[in-house]
Amino acid sequence: MSRATTDAVHVDDQLLAMYVAELGAIGDTPDGMYRFMYDDAWQRARDTLLGWIRDAGLEARVDAVGNVFGRLPGSGDGVVLTGSHVDTVPSGGKYDGALGVVGGLAALAALRQVGTPTTTLEVVSLCEEESSRFPANFFGTRAMLGLIAPDEPDRLRDRDGVTLAEAMRRAGLDPAAVATAERHDLRTFLELHIEQGRVLADEGVDIGLVEVIPGIAWETITVRGRQDHAGATPMDLRADALQAAAQMAREITVAVEGEGRPAVVTTGRWTVEPGQPSIVPGLARFSLDLRHPDLSVRDRLLDQVHRICADVAQRHGVEVDVVRDKDEEPATMDETLLDVLRGSAEACAASWRRMPSGAGHDSQLMASRVPTAMVFVPSVEGRSHTPAEYTSPEDCVRGASVLATALHRLAY
Amino acid sequence: MSRATTDAVHVDDQLLAMYVAELGAIGDTPDGMYRFMYDDAWQRARDTLLGWIRDAGLEARVDAVGNVFGRLPGSGDGVVLTGSHVDTVPSGGKYDGALGVVGGLAALAALRQVGTPTTTLEVVSLCEEESSRFPANFFGTRAMLGLIAPDEPDRLRDRDGVTLAEAMRRAGLDPAAVATAERHDLRTFLELHIEQGRVLADEGVDIGLVEVIPGIAWETITVRGRQDHAGATPMDLRADALQAAAQMAREITVAVEGEGRPAVVTTGRWTVEPGQPSIVPGLARFSLDLRHPDLSVRDRLLDQVHRICADVAQRHGVEVDVVRDKDEEPATMDETLLDVLRGSAEACAASWRRMPSGAGHDSQLMASRVPTAMVFVPSVEGRSHTPAEYTSPEDCVRGASVLATALHRLAY
Repeated sequence: MSRATTDAVHVDDQLLAMYVAELGAIGDTPDGMYRFMYDDAWQRARDTLLGWIRDAGLEARVDAVGNVFGRLPGSGDGVVLTGSHVDTVPSGGKYDGALGVVGGLAALAALRQVGTPTTTLEVVSLCEEESSRFPANFFGTRAMLGLIAPDEPDRLRDRDGVTLAEAMRRAGLDPAAVATAERHDLRTFLELHIEQGRVLADEGVDIGLVEVIPGIAWETITVRGRQDHAGATPMDLRADALQAAAQMAREITVAVEGEGRPAVVTTGRWTVEPGQPSIVPGLARFSLDLRHPDLSVRDRLLDQVHRICADVAQRHGVEVDVVRDKDEEPATMDETLLDVLRGSAEACAASWRRMPSGAGHDSQLMASRVPTAMVFVPSVEGRSHTPAEYTSPEDCVRGASVLATALHRLAY
Repeated sequence: MSRATTDAVHVDDQLLAMYVAELGAIGDTPDGMYRFMYDDAWQRARDTLLGWIRDAGLEARVDAVGNVFGRLPGSGDGVVLTGSHVDTVPSGGKYDGALGVVGGLAALAALRQVGTPTTTLEVVSLCEEESSRFPANFFGTRAMLGLIAPDEPDRLRDRDGVTLAEAMRRAGLDPAAVATAERHDLRTFLELHIEQGRVLADEGVDIGLVEVIPGIAWETITVRGRQDHAGATPMDLRADALQAAAQMAREITVAVEGEGRPAVVTTGRWTVEPGQPSIVPGLARFSLDLRHPDLSVRDRLLDQVHRICADVAQRHGVEVDVVRDKDEEPATMDETLLDVLRGSAEACAASWRRMPSGAGHDSQLMASRVPTAMVFVPSVEGRSHTPAEYTSPEDCVRGASVLATALHRLAY
């Protein structure tokens, strides 16, 4: 790893502002951003990025799953990769994922002016991270790491029943070629991302250096009671699935609140059946998202969640069923890379702090294979996964310049 | 009103069993009955009923909104009407509404054998009571009473965006003719219905004579919080709309449980947005159905509901908005008709009790214009608005025979 004692590398602020604005217009609606893997907006974003990559004098390529790469070839072996994901949550914002893609592109555009690196540099627009359309999250990163199960393309369906394979074909991709997306030449991964929380904004710090990404647990909690007439069934004879589920959601939340920061729990998706004002609900189903950077704390809280569900179900005379949908281990970032990023922040005259991530990121999977680190920039009021998500142009440029400086120190 | 001292009039048990089974097969699915106004199943039911009416030797007619009538002409003026509604709730049962239609038809078929009445008898299959497809409940009864607003057919839409007028046209009806459905010749209305509760079943009583139908209040409660990232937003900084709504729903329910029988409250329909596991909900909306036969008690409970919503909203840092969707006055049944029904039950050797209705019924509107009363038969385990809804063939026949006997006492 060469450690040139250069000055900071600054990205072009007007170019980055154009990237952010134009990518943020693709999939924008009055209800926020909707850019789901392989849909029309996603395809327009892919084509737009390919154009920008070529305009920047980089080599453009799309892999078998739709990850888009811009390459600045080096004289030696291996690849230093940067980037993030291009898909959004429903009703999302313009910065989550997107900033790491266009920030990485602006960084490589600036570095191309510096000269030919010793290690090849690539920026990637990962096709999928959010699991918004298919239950396939980290699909882009998993493809690069050879972690896509062979049956996923035909097995996974979106809410309209379209298989992932069919969606790939409609986007001009061949689902039979997924395995060819695997990479063996990656040496390092750096990801620029908005914080999505309010730590940096509250403390007035420019740059967050992520030490650890928490292990997320997702569960689906299904409550089955008894569907009855809303007028003719006395309260004392009911087994109302929704009332039991609401009580569970409240007790779970109060319990996790009692644990204190950084434990978080969210019950974000709800289905109530049959869903009529005049019918006592027979079924209620809700999602649980529970996170803590310490796996033992997280698992202790999950045990508490399950005890609450069983206890409330018994009190309400309903049945409860819990299914674990996702179970991620916490991921630790590379200390050497954190040192490089710290030095780069200082070279850019940016204040910094080390911190855990609140959210999950592609970096947590990449970290299982190659040295990986993340750079956070502030989110105004900590807002994210909402159209109100915002990071100032100055913070975007600062983060991309810290990234460019670090890439320069790593690859030249 | 002639009061002939005849014996009981018994309906044909095999004919009634056939009616119940065959009407119950129209719109039946693995998830229960789905027969919504003007849909395919509803049209098949209409056509089947018209065939049965003609087979019974009655005059068949469909009015401008799709109410189906079977008429046994009398020698004098006016009409004694019986019947109920043919539409179902989603995932409903085979008896709610349907029994009153086919029980009334079986009663008129039996009375036709007795001879020509002095007052014309009609049985009606009301096109709509449940408000399952359009927000237009009691549409059939309202049409007969001239209570359809002129703009309803073009204004009201189903969940697919189809207007009521368009749905009428697809079912062969002319929305411009709605006003012609109004009747001025009705003298009496009797409705046979399943209890939909468990009072009769628990007490082993054959027949319920309804004294009063409670005033139903429907409200929509909308909670607006702040949509945030589920990983990066600490619990103490959230304004989670769903958590506030769940707390409201629980406190409201506990308050109404504290009032005791016969107060009932139901929170049956839920919308949570954006509805993703990884996003703190920014909006939660739920329906409130609150009933009590004493209007002053109901309104006191509604005041309490509103205080709870405001209090919980303040504690959770969210905004709450309450809209009244329906506000019905309790309806009192006619004492003279209750006497006739009591005598008819005794003539049929049926045990009886007077009772309030739990549910709302077409009779509550009819009662505002003509003397009206209802006959309840037992619901096994009190189940209703579910595919598990069931009333034994013996109870169906007994109820229809009490109805036939009462119609005989009223119209001969």
